[in-house]
Amino acid sequence: MKKQAKISNAVIKRLPRYRRYLNELRKKGVDKISSNEFSSLIGYTASQIRQDLNNFGGFGQQGYGYSVEGLYNEISAILGLDKNYKMVVVGAGNLGRAIANHTYYYKTGFIVEGIFEIDPELIGKKINDVEIMNYEDIVEFVEENDIDIGIICTTKDVAQEVADKLCFAGVRGLWNFAPVDIETPSHVAIENVHISDSLHSLAYHMSKNAEEKNK
Amino acid sequence: MKKQAKISNAVIKRLPRYRRYLNELRKKGVDKISSNEFSSLIGYTASQIRQDLNNFGGFGQQGYGYSVEGLYNEISAILGLDKNYKMVVVGAGNLGRAIANHTYYYKTGFIVEGIFEIDPELIGKKINDVEIMNYEDIVEFVEENDIDIGIICTTKDVAQEVADKLCFAGVRGLWNFAPVDIETPSHVAIENVHISDSLHSLAYHMSKNAEEKNK
Repeated sequence: MKKQAKISNAVIKRLPRYRRYLNELRKKGVDKISSNEFSSLIGYTASQIRQDLNNFGGFGQQGYGYSVEGLYNEISAILGLDKNYKMVVVGAGNLGRAIANHTYYYKTGFIVEGIFEIDPELIGKKINDVEIMNYEDIVEFVEENDIDIGIICTTKDVAQEVADKLCFAGVRGLWNFAPVDIETPSHVAIENVHISDSLHSLAYHMSKNAEEKNK
Repeated sequence: MKKQAKISNAVIKRLPRYRRYLNELRKKGVDKISSNEFSSLIGYTASQIRQDLNNFGGFGQQGYGYSVEGLYNEISAILGLDKNYKMVVVGAGNLGRAIANHTYYYKTGFIVEGIFEIDPELIGKKINDVEIMNYEDIVEFVEENDIDIGIICTTKDVAQEVADKLCFAGVRGLWNFAPVDIETPSHVAIENVHISDSLHSLAYHMSKNAEEKNK
């Protein structure tokens, strides 16, 4: 696999979507797909698709199309999804439970090893056989179990503090659901998920539709 | 407020982020901000910021900067956040409950009016004073209460069917959390949220960091 040094974030953000569609095709038993067919499925232009995939050396052959299985595996490898990741969830509220369940049901290489809380009523309970533990013990747990990713499902006001503790304990990535942009040292990757941003985009498109209608 | 006909989706997707940062500034009592100051805060280049905001007629004045409050209000209006939206949640599992709670706590103009389920054990219960109702009654409820947005927190296999029913009942937008891209008629706006896409981006950045380290 040929990798290039610098691929834009915009391309990286599209790869999980490519992978999802390829996975659906795989499951349906589709072997090959042309960039035109892929375009009508995924909603990007064929030239965009060719350009995106060329970033990684180009997997397609002229007049033949892409191998669905091959491309799926390559994109999975590029995304680092051919490895396993150990994760902890901080915060066992509804969102923490939803995320823990979500990764459990989709049985990918992302494994929740522990869930941490400060609420004594929740500590000791289990979610999908994973114990809810005392947040005070998180550094020790992360260190001893070589945890890769911390998932932050706390309130906004404590999120950065939790992030700092997780970074100190040695995680390599943070997946943050608290509605604040968390900062990390450069060796720790961060994805800040702002659920309401997509609701605000939705509101925009609804307003646009209403304007069109009233024209 | 001057609006232009066609603004790229990429710009639209950045607006909620601008708004979030402006909101933080407002709360801290900041009146004015230059594109350079805004740049160091939000992480886009100053020229990107000027270009993005020029799409909407340009709110800044040369040598003066942007009015935080003014820009916040303008972006809110552009996003359609100066209106109220009535919503229903379909699926009262962890994710449905998390989303219902999320919108409740952030007390914006997005109000959950009803939650719908097929599980008889959940029907009749309440989440933040909002009743969990029988999914069979959803069309009538949406029609009678002029619901604007349907939030889909079901499993993947029923998501499109639920979407079709909500569109039939008259919603103007769908916010979909089921891990499948839902299709809607053109007059119904759709935001498909794929939570795991951001986890996959995170894995990519972690792999890149690991490669850098091993160089």
